[in-house]
Amino acid sequence: MNGKYIIGIDLGGTKISGAISTFDGKIIYKKSIDTLSSQGPERVTGRILGHIKHLIEYVKADKDEVSGIGIASPGPLNIEEGVIVETPNLPFRNYPLIKTVERETGIKAYLENDANAAALGELWFGAGRGSKNFIYMTVSTGIGGGIVINGDIYHGHTGNAGEFGHMTVEPHGPRCNCGNYGCLEVMSSGTAIARIANERLKAGEDSLLRNCEKVTSKEVFEYASKGDKLSCEVVDYTMNYLGIGTANLVNAFDPELIIIGGGVSKAGDALFSRVKNVVSKRCFEIMAKSVKIIPPGLSTDAGLVGALAVIMSKYNSAD
Amino acid sequence: MNGKYIIGIDLGGTKISGAISTFDGKIIYKKSIDTLSSQGPERVTGRILGHIKHLIEYVKADKDEVSGIGIASPGPLNIEEGVIVETPNLPFRNYPLIKTVERETGIKAYLENDANAAALGELWFGAGRGSKNFIYMTVSTGIGGGIVINGDIYHGHTGNAGEFGHMTVEPHGPRCNCGNYGCLEVMSSGTAIARIANERLKAGEDSLLRNCEKVTSKEVFEYASKGDKLSCEVVDYTMNYLGIGTANLVNAFDPELIIIGGGVSKAGDALFSRVKNVVSKRCFEIMAKSVKIIPPGLSTDAGLVGALAVIMSKYNSAD
Repeated sequence: MNGKYIIGIDLGGTKISGAISTFDGKIIYKKSIDTLSSQGPERVTGRILGHIKHLIEYVKADKDEVSGIGIASPGPLNIEEGVIVETPNLPFRNYPLIKTVERETGIKAYLENDANAAALGELWFGAGRGSKNFIYMTVSTGIGGGIVINGDIYHGHTGNAGEFGHMTVEPHGPRCNCGNYGCLEVMSSGTAIARIANERLKAGEDSLLRNCEKVTSKEVFEYASKGDKLSCEVVDYTMNYLGIGTANLVNAFDPELIIIGGGVSKAGDALFSRVKNVVSKRCFEIMAKSVKIIPPGLSTDAGLVGALAVIMSKYNSAD
Repeated sequence: MNGKYIIGIDLGGTKISGAISTFDGKIIYKKSIDTLSSQGPERVTGRILGHIKHLIEYVKADKDEVSGIGIASPGPLNIEEGVIVETPNLPFRNYPLIKTVERETGIKAYLENDANAAALGELWFGAGRGSKNFIYMTVSTGIGGGIVINGDIYHGHTGNAGEFGHMTVEPHGPRCNCGNYGCLEVMSSGTAIARIANERLKAGEDSLLRNCEKVTSKEVFEYASKGDKLSCEVVDYTMNYLGIGTANLVNAFDPELIIIGGGVSKAGDALFSRVKNVVSKRCFEIMAKSVKIIPPGLSTDAGLVGALAVIMSKYNSAD
């Protein structure tokens, strides 16, 4: 059953990243190609298939030596059927990607939500090694999550568990893209940090941020560290809500770890110290003291490693 | 291993309820005695032990025929060690109840948080039969919860998962007994409903509630159904927050069911219709349409049946 190799594919709106690794996850060869999403579902699927073929040929493997292909994709997905239901930056709508890949390659393939794949990557190769129960949260343009219970992803009834970004943390907050008001994502994502800073600049407030050509969350954290008042206030305001969201997860899941990844987590201590502070105020002491709130172990290639980990988790138990 | 009988004990501040049942949970005999909590831990333990002896003798059983004793207690507990860490209405502080019961009876005993026990009761005998993944929430004086994943309780890292009552749903809300602000419990529990109504009465607002000798959540729901304006507004206000808390659980867990029990759930449709309405607004459609938000299957003896279910879950899988 267990061949020598496994393949991981990380589907993104801009790039398709692929890697072939040994069965224990050591990457032998990896390469990214452009997605060229505008060419439509059939052409993009063709590019995925071509890329899989290339990975196998490059390491001079036989396809019978490949145990499985893990594909990480933005959601929503129908994991069980291997169908991409809809994703904003890819051309697939109710598209049976897994059936197509399996038919054309003859290799067993598995689809997984990209945040769940990243959580599996952390479980197998990152900060989650040795933990059976943890929460992974990714904070970047949006906020997503993955739940690891008993060493595997908890998918929930419709396969959509872990939508932490759409937890209400401010009932009277602004409208989120999802239609709800005051979601964690609209209060604390990278997009939210930039939006709030830009709104305040537009309203005429004084700030060193006016020196920047473009204000993203990166600049806001950077100028906050330099003591810029507006930047500090925006960081405090948004990270307070991220702390509330995290505290809600602690009270519900009582996890061993909460791994916060994604672009915004690169702010480091400016994020983690604020989040931990809110958790210590808003959770029972026993849980607040026990939970470790940490950055991911994987930085580059997190999606790709996650896609490989999807296959690892099918054949092994992460003990 | 499997004897003929099992015993359930539900520890409460006022009463100790006990039942002896067949191994599949059919209660043969049950009886409650007073807790007499003020007599201290040793005397209360003596009453528990005496009650267990009485249950066994009453059905003319031999203690070797009893497979196990399930004890449901308010928390926080250390489940693994069988220790009651602290409970407001019982005299136990860091008390090794399970070791004592096992030593004195010679029967294997298990401790479980009362909300978790109620969730197990629903899994085995109530509205959760046939479901593998669901959330149980109890709304009464406080708000507690239990998480069923893969047909068993998910305890979390310190054994305290499911503290839904202390999820922040209103960052600017009033202070909760736990020290945090704007917890679900301080916004939506029976205590909260009564508090908010009484505050508004005290402020001089007009209401039919003035006819009541005492205003509890029961009267508020009753007068809301009669169209009393203040009562309607309090029900709308508090149930909106219960809906937000429930919606947050849906987005995080994507459960098959959310069972809402406890005294306040007896308000019936006045609670469930409002909660469902908020969930439909604040959750992704796929999850909001899939999740069933329902009252419990067990009403009387829920704690006692839950205590029996603790033993069932140790020896069986709830398929």
